[in-house]
Amino acid sequence: MFITFEGIDGSGKSVQAKRCADLLSRHSPVLYCFDPGHTAIGNAVRGILLNTAHAEMDPRTELLLYAAARSQLVTEEVLPFLNKGGIVISDRFYDSTTAYQGYGRQLPLDLIRRLNMTGAHDLVPDLTFIIDTELHTASGRVGRAADPDRLESESQAFKQRVQQGYRAIAENEPERCKLIDGNRPVEAIHREIRSFLEEKLNIEK
Amino acid sequence: MFITFEGIDGSGKSVQAKRCADLLSRHSPVLYCFDPGHTAIGNAVRGILLNTAHAEMDPRTELLLYAAARSQLVTEEVLPFLNKGGIVISDRFYDSTTAYQGYGRQLPLDLIRRLNMTGAHDLVPDLTFIIDTELHTASGRVGRAADPDRLESESQAFKQRVQQGYRAIAENEPERCKLIDGNRPVEAIHREIRSFLEEKLNIEK
Repeated sequence: MFITFEGIDGSGKSVQAKRCADLLSRHSPVLYCFDPGHTAIGNAVRGILLNTAHAEMDPRTELLLYAAARSQLVTEEVLPFLNKGGIVISDRFYDSTTAYQGYGRQLPLDLIRRLNMTGAHDLVPDLTFIIDTELHTASGRVGRAADPDRLESESQAFKQRVQQGYRAIAENEPERCKLIDGNRPVEAIHREIRSFLEEKLNIEK
Repeated sequence: MFITFEGIDGSGKSVQAKRCADLLSRHSPVLYCFDPGHTAIGNAVRGILLNTAHAEMDPRTELLLYAAARSQLVTEEVLPFLNKGGIVISDRFYDSTTAYQGYGRQLPLDLIRRLNMTGAHDLVPDLTFIIDTELHTASGRVGRAADPDRLESESQAFKQRVQQGYRAIAENEPERCKLIDGNRPVEAIHREIRSFLEEKLNIEK
């Protein structure tokens, strides 16, 4: 079982991903990871991606770097853990690329789809929670960061396109993606996710 | 005019690329570059690629990182210079990916072709010199390196597949690629390249 959490910065997805990992680890071995990063190579790539000195980064370069970090995460960590029967929970995965590089940067969506499959070694999440939080609420949560990284520094219009992108993904793939209202307290959101998982995975309450 | 130089490590391609840049700069503005690297982002990616600590790098991760470095080189340096009417000479370009990741690592060639085009922003070299040098001659030249990088540390069988790959590229694209016997003194090789260019570019001798 491979579960991913998606959403804009400040949406609350990371908190929910960790809560979900805690919950499921009572039943099965769970690997919690984040994309980009987690592996040594992925973290090195993440450093290039978030470096504010790299303002001149071409959108395709960015797309390829995300796919590279993901490729390493999938082969080094995700696939081996799934193959042993564990549950993997990832904070972001290729839907972030569709939302940020596809809708945000407006790269062609068929190029994005191809690169997503290449970077993911054709691995598709079994379940994706998209935490849909209003921009002003999300900005309020991340606003405290003194030192915004290269992507946090993007314009409001860019962030709006990214949010629209996530909603489009949820609409296009309703079987895999569950859109969750993120404008509520952490506990209320977690309860909804927990109920959904209890039913879906048929685990004890 | 975009000219690339290709070949295994120690083939002599870098010396020939520089000599060629010197020659053509008497007639036109010339940009000499190398792939991967040259740009700040490309050099950061190159650092990840050559780091011997990254022994666990997945072949697809490697492929995506080379494409990312190339994408940045093409948009930041190569295309702007070509658009101003200059000549660009690159020490390695996507044929290295075909030879190393395609033939060397044996990744599917259609995947390589797609990634090559994505990373190159569909830019195809006008002319490619493939310097074909016997492995023992090439190893003798680079053998002095006290600290081989991640790719220099590869097995002899890998290097043989890479060399075969370069020969296959030259055979498949004879219009673009000129195979040059690299087992001769630098001056003899340069003379052959010079004659070829003088005729091709119709420049004064």
